[in-house]
Amino acid sequence: MPTQQEHIVSSYDDELDRLKGEIVRIGDLAVEQLQQAVIALKNGDRALAERVIKADDRIDEMELEISSDVLRVLALRHPMASDLRGVLASLRIASDIERIGDYATNIAKRTLAISDGAVKSAVASVEEMSDYAIGMMRAVRQAYIDHDAEAAMRVRDSDVDLDRRYTRLFRELLTYMLEDPRNITNCAHLLFVAKNVERIGDHVTNIAENICFSVEGTLPEEERAKGDTTSTGA
Amino acid sequence: MPTQQEHIVSSYDDELDRLKGEIVRIGDLAVEQLQQAVIALKNGDRALAERVIKADDRIDEMELEISSDVLRVLALRHPMASDLRGVLASLRIASDIERIGDYATNIAKRTLAISDGAVKSAVASVEEMSDYAIGMMRAVRQAYIDHDAEAAMRVRDSDVDLDRRYTRLFRELLTYMLEDPRNITNCAHLLFVAKNVERIGDHVTNIAENICFSVEGTLPEEERAKGDTTSTGA
Repeated sequence: MPTQQEHIVSSYDDELDRLKGEIVRIGDLAVEQLQQAVIALKNGDRALAERVIKADDRIDEMELEISSDVLRVLALRHPMASDLRGVLASLRIASDIERIGDYATNIAKRTLAISDGAVKSAVASVEEMSDYAIGMMRAVRQAYIDHDAEAAMRVRDSDVDLDRRYTRLFRELLTYMLEDPRNITNCAHLLFVAKNVERIGDHVTNIAENICFSVEGTLPEEERAKGDTTSTGA
Repeated sequence: MPTQQEHIVSSYDDELDRLKGEIVRIGDLAVEQLQQAVIALKNGDRALAERVIKADDRIDEMELEISSDVLRVLALRHPMASDLRGVLASLRIASDIERIGDYATNIAKRTLAISDGAVKSAVASVEEMSDYAIGMMRAVRQAYIDHDAEAAMRVRDSDVDLDRRYTRLFRELLTYMLEDPRNITNCAHLLFVAKNVERIGDHVTNIAENICFSVEGTLPEEERAKGDTTSTGA
């Protein structure tokens, strides 16, 4: 039979595990949202886009649940050192995932705005870019579960490729706009869709850095390489 | 002469005040960055844009300082109730301000990408929109200093006007692109500048909600009205 002390320790560990499980679940939901949003965009499936928009509420609720669990653990358990870092990292990671959910929702909203006749090859490039971002999300999920700072840093480093894909797509979309003014409105929306996916990569990078902070106690210092050169005109 | 107990209490209050002062200062820096970025855009001032880009490092450093102060206060002081909420709110507010700084930097980077001959009236509309966002930032700063949840909610409610301005500007920019293909690249960059300012409004809204959480213990529940209808094509 456990002593009182063991009982308290075990219940504290349960709370930390519960928090970890919540982070994995909200992350899985965000991956699902992004996948569905891009399928809706590809197929011009307005009903699916509406479902994605509606499902975002669940992610928002989960973030609030995580925040209140963090608050409770801090108030009642006073976690120290690596536990404290892990708890604070949960708060930040949940916030990054909630933002990823918002970007997925925005892609679904733009699907509703894009009229028939969107340039097919542009949509295919968006899909390819989004597949890459989903790969990053899956890799950072594994790094989080394994508490693996090195794997997290590899995910962070891979963001430079997503940025490169974005830069290429930005230029591709401009050419469609130049070719035919009838493409301008649809391509302006696709520019933002591409930007949303690029921003998702930045949030995955934040998550990777928070895993590193949680495991090692410091945020990685070296500036990561940036592959998005659209805003500097390169 | 203060007793030992009073001394400890006073030093804890000093730490909380210090955190509050840091939040105000990083916020002021972000306002300054946005103002300078828009001046650089308006005047095509590349040297000023470069200075804005460089100054973003200071905001990033300040966010890290705030994070480590939060960690220390949590680890050593175990704040409870309203203090705990205030400390957690600092962490989130600092993160929102850091993102606002990133958006200001991105505006400066786009200034470098925009070639001569950007549509003047479009730039003027961007400036007007950014003035509105700066007004929101100043109002939320005051609400934070005054610990005033009602004032914070008024700032949150004003975001709907910023969203409306964004929707109008989005349409305005599309018309310039349709009128003359030579405007397309510059206007695509201005679309993102406008989107950056609209996102700054969202972060100000987050800050307002965190002030409310810190003062009242709950995040505001009612869904705020959304004025940005560009992504739904309205």
